Amino acid sequence: MTEAAMQEAAMQAPQDSTTYERTDRNVPTRSAERASYDRDLVHSILDEAYLCHLGFVRDGAPVVLPTLFARQGEHLYVHGSTGSRPLRGATRQDPGLPVCLTVTHVDGLVLARSAFHHSMNYRSVVVHGVARPVTGTEEKRAALDAIVDHVVAGRAADSRPANTKELAATAVLRLDLTEVSAKIRTGGPSDDDEDMGLPFWSGVVPVSRHYGTPIPADDLTDGIAPPSYLPGS
Amino acid sequence: MTEAAMQEAAMQAPQDSTTYERTDRNVPTRSAERASYDRDLVHSILDEAYLCHLGFVRDGAPVVLPTLFARQGEHLYVHGSTGSRPLRGATRQDPGLPVCLTVTHVDGLVLARSAFHHSMNYRSVVVHGVARPVTGTEEKRAALDAIVDHVVAGRAADSRPANTKELAATAVLRLDLTEVSAKIRTGGPSDDDEDMGLPFWSGVVPVSRHYGTPIPADDLTDGIAPPSYLPGS
Repeated sequence: MTEAAMQEAAMQAPQDSTTYERTDRNVPTRSAERASYDRDLVHSILDEAYLCHLGFVRDGAPVVLPTLFARQGEHLYVHGSTGSRPLRGATRQDPGLPVCLTVTHVDGLVLARSAFHHSMNYRSVVVHGVARPVTGTEEKRAALDAIVDHVVAGRAADSRPANTKELAATAVLRLDLTEVSAKIRTGGPSDDDEDMGLPFWSGVVPVSRHYGTPIPADDLTDGIAPPSYLPGS
Repeated sequence: MTEAAMQEAAMQAPQDSTTYERTDRNVPTRSAERASYDRDLVHSILDEAYLCHLGFVRDGAPVVLPTLFARQGEHLYVHGSTGSRPLRGATRQDPGLPVCLTVTHVDGLVLARSAFHHSMNYRSVVVHGVARPVTGTEEKRAALDAIVDHVVAGRAADSRPANTKELAATAVLRLDLTEVSAKIRTGGPSDDDEDMGLPFWSGVVPVSRHYGTPIPADDLTDGIAPPSYLPGS
């Protein structure tokens, strides 16, 4: 199948509430067979991450910044100082700031016999949409809790909640999950038949995230043990 | 010092050949004290990564895609199929495609006593510039080798080099390191004085990349051992 035909087929695949809608923007022109619109899969990739790369346009040029985020149902939240550029941009603009929010997990280095077929095993999600400032205090508070809990599940309830001054100093943007796609590569290398006899090792080097032993703050009050919800503990 | 004053001070700091030039675009409006323009530091952050997030503008909206890259001196290279959107965009456009290329390493989860002061330890590099297609065969070949070696050092020489057909099917973009900044956070949480007595654990959970035992391809020729340059082996 040609790339164009694969894209066409993907656009016409059955759609229901368990999948995100396919659009011209979220059906890739390349490797469309690696794309998925499955909600559960998208959610799982997003929830395993706490860092995203947020893209927006400033003065006509692209800007990509790493930032923490969290998912709550079909909404994503990012936060930042009310003085930061994207947050100011979103607050100034009506009806919001066009963004692209991308999350990527690297799962393996794929070494083929040919340099050309080297690749990575990965899971990524790309979300297109318009980020809008969250103005309601309750939604803002819930979003900030979700961001803390996205980093370490259970932590929001085991820390001092934001006070009124902190809430006022924090801008939160919401991005709805409507134009979304996941892309996944798994498995071993795909060498060409004529390369099979070459004397080069081929295979996959697994890559994963590792948590070390928690390091207490220098000024931690004596007698407070690392909580059981910490990764690496 | 106010944010504006810090930005002003950063703009006026001494500059020489060991640092990148400060511009309105690469001096952050927030946490300017975490920014660095040191070439060696920027290079080390870039070289420890193989994946970047590449942002560009399509139809007026931002797009952020994960992709492999490599550094050669003061040039970055990304590659892709000649059919992919950013690559087509760069080839079509004169004088190139405005991009923002961002690399982020997460080094730790920073848990403060207050939800507000939760943070991450990280090292990131943001590169603004215009990506231009590499047309010379030799530079293209060297860039592709560099991308393979960026993933696993030593691998390019131990695999079949790209042939003429593969070179023709691969587009390579070059982005010069001119408008560049690094941003780094290290160390423990920074709680407010009045929170020091709160009964919450605070500290840092270290995060690092872990390589598992290499998995040979199903069709690997018998007798080929994993090479010593593999991580995880």
